[in-house]
Amino acid sequence: MLTVRREVRIEWGDCDPAGIVFYPRYFTMFDHSTSALMEIALGMRKFEAQRAYDFAGFPLVATHAKFLIPNRYGDDVVIESAVGEVRRSSCDIVHRIFKNGQLSVDASETRVWVGPFAAERGQFKSQPIPQAVADRFKSPERAPA
Amino acid sequence: MLTVRREVRIEWGDCDPAGIVFYPRYFTMFDHSTSALMEIALGMRKFEAQRAYDFAGFPLVATHAKFLIPNRYGDDVVIESAVGEVRRSSCDIVHRIFKNGQLSVDASETRVWVGPFAAERGQFKSQPIPQAVADRFKSPERAPA
Amino acid sequence: MLTVRREVRIEWGDCDPAGIVFYPRYFTMFDHSTSALMEIALGMRKFEAQRAYDFAGFPLVATHAKFLIPNRYGDDVVIESAVGEVRRSSCDIVHRIFKNGQLSVDASETRVWVGPFAAERGQFKSQPIPQAVADRFKSPERAPA
Amino acid sequence: MLTVRREVRIEWGDCDPAGIVFYPRYFTMFDHSTSALMEIALGMRKFEAQRAYDFAGFPLVATHAKFLIPNRYGDDVVIESAVGEVRRSSCDIVHRIFKNGQLSVDASETRVWVGPFAAERGQFKSQPIPQAVADRFKSPERAPA
Repeated sequence: MLTVRREVRIEWGDCDPAGIVFYPRYFTMFDHSTSALMEIALGMRKFEAQRAYDFAGFPLVATHAKFLIPNRYGDDVVIESAVGEVRRSSCDIVHRIFKNGQLSVDASETRVWVGPFAAERGQFKSQPIPQAVADRFKSPERAPA
Repeated sequence: MLTVRREVRIEWGDCDPAGIVFYPRYFTMFDHSTSALMEIALGMRKFEAQRAYDFAGFPLVATHAKFLIPNRYGDDVVIESAVGEVRRSSCDIVHRIFKNGQLSVDASETRVWVGPFAAERGQFKSQPIPQAVADRFKSPERAPA
Repeated sequence: MLTVRREVRIEWGDCDPAGIVFYPRYFTMFDHSTSALMEIALGMRKFEAQRAYDFAGFPLVATHAKFLIPNRYGDDVVIESAVGEVRRSSCDIVHRIFKNGQLSVDASETRVWVGPFAAERGQFKSQPIPQAVADRFKSPERAPA
Repeated sequence: MLTVRREVRIEWGDCDPAGIVFYPRYFTMFDHSTSALMEIALGMRKFEAQRAYDFAGFPLVATHAKFLIPNRYGDDVVIESAVGEVRRSSCDIVHRIFKNGQLSVDASETRVWVGPFAAERGQFKSQPIPQAVADRFKSPERAPA
């Protein structure tokens, strides 16, 4: 499956008074990686894709994460993100953070391809993932971000 | 089990270009609720407790969340957070966000009571949750934050 | 001028490894206060106002801040935000954070009332502040958020 | 003066419902650039320097910024950060963000070199910037981050 690999410096502002990453920031890092995966799969940046495909985004419907080794400001980590199962209008993405080759955070998320936000109902409506995107998700390609 | 309830306004800066909460922000909201639970259980604020108990914090080891209804800036939501299972040095906390009485986000986390950060090894060491804190966690008290 | 006052708890996740507020978070707090001021001046929430007035927002064009006393997690502070000079399509807002009655942060910002984002040019176009909003900005009202 | 240049992708999670950077995030970006400047000047990462120099950090005492051109998710910008005036225990740092060669954000900050946090008084005490660091700040070096 399509995989993207990013090297990330843990910054002072990512960390809490214990000196380690404030865990919500990991999800921000994962969101950046998913954006990178999407850009490769779409062949264009998100705001371009929103016009080309009339879709609003790819919001999360579920996530889970295990935090195994804490990371401190100044640490350099690797985030590897891979597409998992691809379904009609949703797919899974697995994110793993490694520090010095050891698994630090192990997470997975499920995202849904949605059409324009129906503000009146405060809801999104799922749409089928375009075939070209699904095909690219399933390719064995490994890319740096 | 000890439960805390907070009313939270979704702010402009919590939201992404789709106009809804950028999901990592939900975990920040949950962390605030856990701090409120801890403050009730400890009977003091965290920096006071860190001196009183010689503990470094209560970091997450796992979390999972389901996102059912999106929330938009200007929405007023209720976050209800309850202690779940309490074990020797860890416990579960369940966070649920309601909008207009409907379940919007359903999440749960596992936290570990840890001693001072051993910077050399980049790790924490778990410690037993003090009995007074465990007892308070198990009380049927419901508190506003 | 219209003034709003908010009591804010400094949270663990607002703070950096030095144990004090990571300074960009102060601007997030100020943005919440400006939203509260706007909601009072508009008599409605922002997403309602965006429909009523066909405006995109009230983005910053300038800010400056002095950081006098650091704030730590667990601190309870007061944020007082007051409208300053009101011009045709822009106005100043002054934000001051007090801890135990002492001035901790002293900041000021200039915002411009803008119409819908012209994505093609990647720019906003300023518009006159509606008279009813300008009048309310200039009222001597003091409100809790 | 020492200058560092970083290429930064504006991420979805950096942006607000208007589709442009939520301005507090610019200060987070600037803080990362200042960390990069410091790492070059110190010849080591911050947590190593904190041990070597017995200093707590380099907190802000003032900042100001002008926001000239908005940036949208997917934009690639350049952040150029240069040391300005260097005084006994403080110095200025200028941050400028460019998009397509045009100045987008123009900011400047003053930071103070401080010793360990005196938690009892909730305050920091300034210390002289070590000579080796001051010398490096004043070098004409230009570095990528």
